[in-house]
Amino acid sequence: MCRWLAYSGSPLLLDDLLYQPAHSLIDQSLHSELGVETTNGDGFGVGWYGESDIPAVYKSTEPAWNDRNLRELARSVRSGLVLAHIRASTGTPVQQTNCHPFRHGRWLWMHNGSIARFQDVKRELMLAVDPALYPEIEGSTDSETFFFLALTFGLEDDPPAAVARTIGLVESVGRKHGVEHPFQGTIATTDGESIWAFRYSSEGKSRSLFFSTDVRTLRAIYPEHELLQRLGDEARLVVSEPLGDLKGAWNEVPESSYGVVQAGQDELRPFTPRPPA
Amino acid sequence: MCRWLAYSGSPLLLDDLLYQPAHSLIDQSLHSELGVETTNGDGFGVGWYGESDIPAVYKSTEPAWNDRNLRELARSVRSGLVLAHIRASTGTPVQQTNCHPFRHGRWLWMHNGSIARFQDVKRELMLAVDPALYPEIEGSTDSETFFFLALTFGLEDDPPAAVARTIGLVESVGRKHGVEHPFQGTIATTDGESIWAFRYSSEGKSRSLFFSTDVRTLRAIYPEHELLQRLGDEARLVVSEPLGDLKGAWNEVPESSYGVVQAGQDELRPFTPRPPA
Amino acid sequence: MCRWLAYSGSPLLLDDLLYQPAHSLIDQSLHSELGVETTNGDGFGVGWYGESDIPAVYKSTEPAWNDRNLRELARSVRSGLVLAHIRASTGTPVQQTNCHPFRHGRWLWMHNGSIARFQDVKRELMLAVDPALYPEIEGSTDSETFFFLALTFGLEDDPPAAVARTIGLVESVGRKHGVEHPFQGTIATTDGESIWAFRYSSEGKSRSLFFSTDVRTLRAIYPEHELLQRLGDEARLVVSEPLGDLKGAWNEVPESSYGVVQAGQDELRPFTPRPPA
Amino acid sequence: MCRWLAYSGSPLLLDDLLYQPAHSLIDQSLHSELGVETTNGDGFGVGWYGESDIPAVYKSTEPAWNDRNLRELARSVRSGLVLAHIRASTGTPVQQTNCHPFRHGRWLWMHNGSIARFQDVKRELMLAVDPALYPEIEGSTDSETFFFLALTFGLEDDPPAAVARTIGLVESVGRKHGVEHPFQGTIATTDGESIWAFRYSSEGKSRSLFFSTDVRTLRAIYPEHELLQRLGDEARLVVSEPLGDLKGAWNEVPESSYGVVQAGQDELRPFTPRPPA
Repeated sequence: MCRWLAYSGSPLLLDDLLYQPAHSLIDQSLHSELGVETTNGDGFGVGWYGESDIPAVYKSTEPAWNDRNLRELARSVRSGLVLAHIRASTGTPVQQTNCHPFRHGRWLWMHNGSIARFQDVKRELMLAVDPALYPEIEGSTDSETFFFLALTFGLEDDPPAAVARTIGLVESVGRKHGVEHPFQGTIATTDGESIWAFRYSSEGKSRSLFFSTDVRTLRAIYPEHELLQRLGDEARLVVSEPLGDLKGAWNEVPESSYGVVQAGQDELRPFTPRPPA
Repeated sequence: MCRWLAYSGSPLLLDDLLYQPAHSLIDQSLHSELGVETTNGDGFGVGWYGESDIPAVYKSTEPAWNDRNLRELARSVRSGLVLAHIRASTGTPVQQTNCHPFRHGRWLWMHNGSIARFQDVKRELMLAVDPALYPEIEGSTDSETFFFLALTFGLEDDPPAAVARTIGLVESVGRKHGVEHPFQGTIATTDGESIWAFRYSSEGKSRSLFFSTDVRTLRAIYPEHELLQRLGDEARLVVSEPLGDLKGAWNEVPESSYGVVQAGQDELRPFTPRPPA
Repeated sequence: MCRWLAYSGSPLLLDDLLYQPAHSLIDQSLHSELGVETTNGDGFGVGWYGESDIPAVYKSTEPAWNDRNLRELARSVRSGLVLAHIRASTGTPVQQTNCHPFRHGRWLWMHNGSIARFQDVKRELMLAVDPALYPEIEGSTDSETFFFLALTFGLEDDPPAAVARTIGLVESVGRKHGVEHPFQGTIATTDGESIWAFRYSSEGKSRSLFFSTDVRTLRAIYPEHELLQRLGDEARLVVSEPLGDLKGAWNEVPESSYGVVQAGQDELRPFTPRPPA
Repeated sequence: MCRWLAYSGSPLLLDDLLYQPAHSLIDQSLHSELGVETTNGDGFGVGWYGESDIPAVYKSTEPAWNDRNLRELARSVRSGLVLAHIRASTGTPVQQTNCHPFRHGRWLWMHNGSIARFQDVKRELMLAVDPALYPEIEGSTDSETFFFLALTFGLEDDPPAAVARTIGLVESVGRKHGVEHPFQGTIATTDGESIWAFRYSSEGKSRSLFFSTDVRTLRAIYPEHELLQRLGDEARLVVSEPLGDLKGAWNEVPESSYGVVQAGQDELRPFTPRPPA
């Protein structure tokens, strides 16, 4: 049901992030190992920060593995903050407005997972979206509704609190409709400076999520590794599944927790939804 | 802002309806003469009744003039009730879920025109949609919202009354938001047996709409005309603009009126929106 | 590297052929079991005979599993002779002109496999195509070049001889370029009345190919099977991999052989390429 | 039959080139004034030089006016050498491999016009392409064949001579087939440093072509013009039709001539095809 990658660090060509790794996101579009589906071919999207405050977003309904434009972009776009996502639809149409990452102003958002029985709870959730934000919703996915709920609950001020309130609401509405496990997923969101990544599911069996080991540590272990030498000390990847099998490079994000990739020390903290009052 | 065609009569190849006429809908996709835009290239759709009670719908985001699959279908699908639509977007994304005709059960619906300042009134209109129908809305156009409002107001029982109540609501909500002329357009809808076609705008300057002259009359005038000889007596076309310049073949639908193409005598009646109580 | 299906028999809805079987071609687009790749998501095509002598062809660059138009067509097109193909590109672009089946007049052609090092031998093979046919070649695949060579060598008069001469040429040209195993594949071709299906590879390790057991026999074994009761006695499927696990329903086509599905008794014969003089 | 734009100068956002001008190339995709067709909606392409020696190329089969990815790219890609092209097909399929600009190594090429009765002369022209280049041809247009002929005739060493020999061959082959006016068009090609632009037709009635006035001159006339202040002294545009109605800004390229935009003084010279010996 989707795979994603978030990168923050020294500016890299998208090619280094999307195509070069052994088990790159492009490879995962055909051969995902830890996802629910082997194939993630229902479109994809890439968002990056560069020329302006507003991130650019390239989205396509084609499978990532055969999209020639993505390959061209990857060789010509360089960025220090990138979100990329490959989609395996759980039923909603394959169209650009349903591809991640979603954008609002400076913010990007992507999600792997689902709101259970979304069609049954959609109207109630959409009603909870701030009416001023409502007209910006363009697609029909649970993930985009989720994003606009988080914005409604203050994502731009306090991302962990906003996501906690959103999942709290989703669980509350879902349970009212008799759903046992209303939420499932991993999320990445960014304002162009920090990245917040969440791993949580109502059932306690969340989709996989990993973060990369500190680059200085890795360079010490692998002094010959070409890409590691090029990466700045601050470089960090958060990914649905490891991009290769470099020993020591990948660390699982624990259940019910979130991490912050930011200037200075990154953080990893427990996550608990906050039910509506 | 779109052009459309509705046909009821003896089964014809789509090719006869879509490609053969001198100023066919395909020609109008590049060279509309009476529309707001010369080009209607933001996708298209065709719906037809055939193998089952549920009509089939083919939709594409490509311009109709260069879509090869449409040409193939046109040569191989034969139907006695067809709705076809070419789109010129007024801002909402070019995606299949925004292409007309829209479908609900046995019903098809298409629209040329717009709800003024739709983004400002969308939430209020969406709230008025029957919650049981709400999950079926897949796209983001004013036209689809309009369809589901009409279904909410009883389209399946009394189409003219349901459309009158829907436009009444659209005008009422629009005016509350300070919109002078909230609605504009022509609409065709069908249950697979009859076609209802409406022409109305709040301003009294509606998009063009024409219906074809009774086939028996036309055959008497043009005894040599090949297609006319093939058409059954009941054949009727309702179109945004005439498909050619055959004298006597096309009659303008008057402002603020609607027609019914049905078994027995077709009808043409005045139309007045019905404001909410 | 592609999967395909050919059907001849009483007219069926495409839905019965493409979606209803447990391991349908649509399922194989995501989960092929006997193919080189699990995923066959680089476009697809369906050709069928119906309204006119010239077969209709619907092709798309989308994966078959998420194409909504295919689903619509499948519910509304009925035919007694159908070729369907899902593609896994071996490098040539994903575009409609590279999707199978290819068409020339009344003939359709599809292929699973490849001409080895095609880029190196393409020019020489293209030169061997009848100059009168040359302008009809629209795409860039080995499979289409192969088709036009077969037409050049008399496909319309004697399909097995024409295919034998074509593969003979491909092997001869390939070996001149130092290719050990120049040809690999299964092929289906039809004139709208009979189907010829070939299984051959220079190496003697051809892609899988199966044909269905005589319907009368199957009906005797499975008197409760609904689809079998609906099928006419003449119904025959030739497929890259079985559409389900019905015991006794599927028979492997032997290496280096071809079959003919035709009025009267079907045939299965050995196949040997015929080198150029 | 297509419109194009070539820019060389100080690095600009694609947005400044493609969207900001009053009668931009995007506007021309819907409302061309000097082209053969009002609508140029059969795909488009943009090539630019940036991160590497090899230019990047973004191509789409969608109309340029509704392609959201192009808008995103335009806001995030900055380049000092850009070729952009919008297509109106003269019959060959709408697919990415038929979109301009075409690329070979460091070179880009685009064309507005046609080789008359291309299907009849295609085989003979393709045979004249260097066999080493032949496998690189991916699409089916006259324009791409033309490019590979020019490469065969030494484009990389002497562009004007190579184009003269190519058109000489096209005219010679065409006339052998009884074509009165074999070639028509304007061409732009670049190696990433200079741009060569040609205007020629066998009939002497070529498609329109304009080049922009020296920026220093324009700045003196329009001291308040914002974009002119941002442009470097070397900036030059060559376009199928003027991007606006700024008096004095646009100069027609004369019939049968070519220009070179290069470091130092640009040139404008007469052009004569060179028939085969």
